[in-house]
Amino acid sequence: MSRIPPDHPRYLSLVTRDKVVEGVKIGITDIHGLIAHGRGETFDYLIGEKTTDMAAYAQRAAVAMLLLAKRPVISVNGNTAALVPDELVTLADITRAKLEVNLFHRSEARIHKIIRHLKSRGAGVVLGHKGDARLDLSHGRAIVDKDGIYSADVMLVPLEDGDRCQTLVNMDKKVIAIDLNPLSRTSLSATVSIVDNIIRSIPNMIQFARDMKEVEPYRLQKVVDLYDNRKVLSSAMYEINETLKNEAVRQGIPWNNFPENE
Amino acid sequence: MSRIPPDHPRYLSLVTRDKVVEGVKIGITDIHGLIAHGRGETFDYLIGEKTTDMAAYAQRAAVAMLLLAKRPVISVNGNTAALVPDELVTLADITRAKLEVNLFHRSEARIHKIIRHLKSRGAGVVLGHKGDARLDLSHGRAIVDKDGIYSADVMLVPLEDGDRCQTLVNMDKKVIAIDLNPLSRTSLSATVSIVDNIIRSIPNMIQFARDMKEVEPYRLQKVVDLYDNRKVLSSAMYEINETLKNEAVRQGIPWNNFPENE
Repeated sequence: MSRIPPDHPRYLSLVTRDKVVEGVKIGITDIHGLIAHGRGETFDYLIGEKTTDMAAYAQRAAVAMLLLAKRPVISVNGNTAALVPDELVTLADITRAKLEVNLFHRSEARIHKIIRHLKSRGAGVVLGHKGDARLDLSHGRAIVDKDGIYSADVMLVPLEDGDRCQTLVNMDKKVIAIDLNPLSRTSLSATVSIVDNIIRSIPNMIQFARDMKEVEPYRLQKVVDLYDNRKVLSSAMYEINETLKNEAVRQGIPWNNFPENE
Repeated sequence: MSRIPPDHPRYLSLVTRDKVVEGVKIGITDIHGLIAHGRGETFDYLIGEKTTDMAAYAQRAAVAMLLLAKRPVISVNGNTAALVPDELVTLADITRAKLEVNLFHRSEARIHKIIRHLKSRGAGVVLGHKGDARLDLSHGRAIVDKDGIYSADVMLVPLEDGDRCQTLVNMDKKVIAIDLNPLSRTSLSATVSIVDNIIRSIPNMIQFARDMKEVEPYRLQKVVDLYDNRKVLSSAMYEINETLKNEAVRQGIPWNNFPENE
């Protein structure tokens, strides 16, 4: 990794970037994952590079859902494995969720590398290598484990493909997505859409899980029942709009004052 | 490159993505260029993946400026060399601009590879290997050719770093930027900010250059004098806002109706 001085104003963003580059270099992240990371960077900039109140509200409902689940599964891809491996292992531990590696650009070699990567960070069983069941999809994401994603009732799918999210919802699973684009097919089709950076989301969810793991089920159920995903998506759009407006004003650029608009 | 069916709804975006991946594989594009490409993809989505009227207005003014220039230079980096090599050569020919390779993550090997790449596409002289002058910058972009960027009066800097753009403007050069983020330091500091995808911009500029190359200088000067860059930036913000609003409405997500806002 390149050396970035900790006092650099973009330190966190640059270190995060380097983690994905490193993921490609050690073979756990596909090279296309870098482009996806860049897309996320822009959306993160637009939501203000912070966990909004409504994103925290979604994270809390997501954790309640995971704690109530009978067969919770956390899906892991090359970008999440590069960015938050320790945190994924911890969250799986507290919520008793299974970890399953599931890749869009699937290769057996990369699946095994990611499984080893997670185990080196303390993971117990990591699913994904069996591939003994199929979802109705035309790419590598279709191949899943029968004991894992296939039979899960609640799934956490960070950095997901739109068509898989829809497919999982159609299978009557509760799907928790982490996606910085509130208008992606994933965000639009998920049961809970966390519009936040994964590097902030998973640590927050760990904290919520620690706080809530002894809470009685009927109270967790109430958190889930009261949750409103449309409000979350609407608020994310509002945040983006505010960021753009505030930044335009700060830079002296007329906002929504385009001549053709008058 | 992967095979993408031409009828795929995201064909152009996927082919463009593959060109940058290929650039990394053949060693002309730095791996960080993929993340930058992803950031651009999001902004392109937000401006509607089209050349807006105001972007075309900026492209026309930019071409007038290049045609009027005494020492025009087109700066080439790893992403532009991967995406539009033929088009850069053609635009340089018509506007009599020099091509100069200039890299943030500078390495002699990569400079020579890009020079060879451009020459294989028909370029004559390509500058950038001498590096006999310096700009006031702390990264590889500082190293320039005395006969090229250092003494240019008008520069086209597609996909630029914010601090270099400001430095070039401070040196009293006229700087034409191509940048999909209207709020980037580059867009904010450039003389002409073209908020458009480079794969659409350079072909459009070639067309404008062909149309305008016989036009009398005083008429070109008028195009330049009447140009208003703040209008261009303001309109790009307006486009982004419209895209977000229209998409939210289309998806049934309340727009700017967030409870905390009432």
